[in-house]
Amino acid sequence: MTPGTAGTKAGIGPPLAEVDTPALLIDVDVLEANIATMATLMAGSPLRYRPHTKTHKSPVIAQMQTAAGADGVCCAKLAEARILAAGGCDDILITSPVVGAHKAAGLVELATTARVAVVADDAGNAAELEAAAAAVGVTLRVLIEIDVGQGRCGVRDIEDVLRLAERVAASPSLDLAGVQGYQGAIQLDPSYAERRAGTELAHERLLRFTTRLRDAGLPVGVRTGGGTGTLAIDLTLPALSELQPGSYVFMDTVYGSLQWSQEPGSTPPFASALSVLATVISRPEAGTAIIDAGHKALSADGGTPQPLTESQCTFAFAGDEHARLDFDGPCPLALGDTVAVTPSHCDTTVNLHDIFTVVRAGTVEAIWQVAARGAIH
Amino acid sequence: MTPGTAGTKAGIGPPLAEVDTPALLIDVDVLEANIATMATLMAGSPLRYRPHTKTHKSPVIAQMQTAAGADGVCCAKLAEARILAAGGCDDILITSPVVGAHKAAGLVELATTARVAVVADDAGNAAELEAAAAAVGVTLRVLIEIDVGQGRCGVRDIEDVLRLAERVAASPSLDLAGVQGYQGAIQLDPSYAERRAGTELAHERLLRFTTRLRDAGLPVGVRTGGGTGTLAIDLTLPALSELQPGSYVFMDTVYGSLQWSQEPGSTPPFASALSVLATVISRPEAGTAIIDAGHKALSADGGTPQPLTESQCTFAFAGDEHARLDFDGPCPLALGDTVAVTPSHCDTTVNLHDIFTVVRAGTVEAIWQVAARGAIH
Repeated sequence: MTPGTAGTKAGIGPPLAEVDTPALLIDVDVLEANIATMATLMAGSPLRYRPHTKTHKSPVIAQMQTAAGADGVCCAKLAEARILAAGGCDDILITSPVVGAHKAAGLVELATTARVAVVADDAGNAAELEAAAAAVGVTLRVLIEIDVGQGRCGVRDIEDVLRLAERVAASPSLDLAGVQGYQGAIQLDPSYAERRAGTELAHERLLRFTTRLRDAGLPVGVRTGGGTGTLAIDLTLPALSELQPGSYVFMDTVYGSLQWSQEPGSTPPFASALSVLATVISRPEAGTAIIDAGHKALSADGGTPQPLTESQCTFAFAGDEHARLDFDGPCPLALGDTVAVTPSHCDTTVNLHDIFTVVRAGTVEAIWQVAARGAIH
Repeated sequence: MTPGTAGTKAGIGPPLAEVDTPALLIDVDVLEANIATMATLMAGSPLRYRPHTKTHKSPVIAQMQTAAGADGVCCAKLAEARILAAGGCDDILITSPVVGAHKAAGLVELATTARVAVVADDAGNAAELEAAAAAVGVTLRVLIEIDVGQGRCGVRDIEDVLRLAERVAASPSLDLAGVQGYQGAIQLDPSYAERRAGTELAHERLLRFTTRLRDAGLPVGVRTGGGTGTLAIDLTLPALSELQPGSYVFMDTVYGSLQWSQEPGSTPPFASALSVLATVISRPEAGTAIIDAGHKALSADGGTPQPLTESQCTFAFAGDEHARLDFDGPCPLALGDTVAVTPSHCDTTVNLHDIFTVVRAGTVEAIWQVAARGAIH
């Protein structure tokens, strides 16, 4: 019922049975294997990689990733960047625009002590960043965000990209450090063919835009983008110089179900390292168990989580604090038994918890803070 | 664009424009009105009420509710009860079973200093609670949880209810304090007729069970249940002696859309007091704004949140950190503008945030901690 029991090292901490539930568990053998697998994959490629830390929100895991060869880390928000920097990360890219004079002032303040870069897709925002950087005397590294098909942030028009890049390059307080072209909308597409086609379009578009910048005499620098869902495809295409995978460290039911490469039936080389340990708190029917983990312990935006039970059962959320497990036959779980549940979406599930309970060989090896949990600003 | 500007009192704090986003806002005029409206409603009824604090997770708001006449509070988990007790709440019902020797020990420890009660639906759990209570020399108040149609926790069979009640009543360390019959599955049913029918069935069932207990000579005590969605119906029916509404303090798009009473078109007497303030961080198209609030700032389990914009727009989640607002015509929002968004589900949205920014008359009057955020144990 519980992960982490297959580790090869002897357990050194208290047994898992003493963990208060619901608890967010990391099978640290699997986490380490995922990080090592990514390092091996990238070692065979000319591309660099910068893992996205919005998945785990942990400077501890970020440093495991950079120790394995990653070129710094990504984060989504300024508040996350502050926590990563305080936790020892020294090369941070903020992958969303940081907008407003107040936030710009906070960003350049951080840039006085940490190596930090930010994306921008608007000339007014570039002016804010420039004024803030000039006020504290730093040169802020800025990447132009280009919409390569996601329909979220990013400049759409090639001449607008050129104008914004020229604006940034001409600023004495900004450094045009590269471009970002992230196609997030296709990362979880269950069709490999669709993911492949969308990734090819994104690369084609990014390549066209960066060629235009080079033709205008502008330095393109880093070309960053990609994610876990398109990793095997991104590695075969020409537009990016740096990948931003996040979910590979933990995986989840959705990422785990994706066809990995063009080979039919191929599965991702990363395994599920994350689960939520829950306790059976009611046995109202012969085939049913109610557990103490609902919407406040497992996110629902990615679909239905998967209980790791030996007998097949269906999982249904039963409100904020409960879920219902229905078995085909008699429920094998007794009141007080624990069951591990694999999240459907790792990022938003991690964001519900304050701590990771780090498990090796069936015992608790460490507690790690979800240090940037709630750092949404 | 921003709530709280219609208050009658002068603003005493910093302006809302200085709030870092995404921010969870309370329009405190509306919050106070909702609490007063509930007090008036209940003053006209022989029933008592015990608001559920899983909605707000705040001892400050809990004490506003009890000051207005509520008979103590409910919470879902032992960890929440600890925080409520530390925050000054002195009469707490835990509405889910507390299972396992470790948790039972924690519960009775809390019961040595706070007035606390818990529900139970299992004889083995009753034995755990009894042993724990005996070990520290307290008498623990226990309510029998009866399934009145929800299909979650709760005893289903009338003779099983009788046996469990006898077990608790006979224990020297447990006090049979009453029964809980909560029908959570129908609280949000958009059909008033269905909600009415389900509530009638729940009352009929609970009444039948409590009659059986009385006939066997057992004290029934408190009969607790109900919620915001069935409040107007519960007030007209006979089985409950105490109601447990939670969401009325804040409301959300789903509760706000419910027909309140049998009068067609009737709306709830509570207004929306909660919003998430977000900032426009990208304007990629003429009719579109991207805001800095996604799945980590607004929950999705209740459906789609509603932006409070003067022009009509559609809201779409665009990942963990962003949402997309699409307007029929040109987008009236500029980069850096803020927009308030009403959550679709207040409870799970509150649980994503560390603080409430409390707004009156357009200025920030206070910051309140979401003290029990993450207290899911």
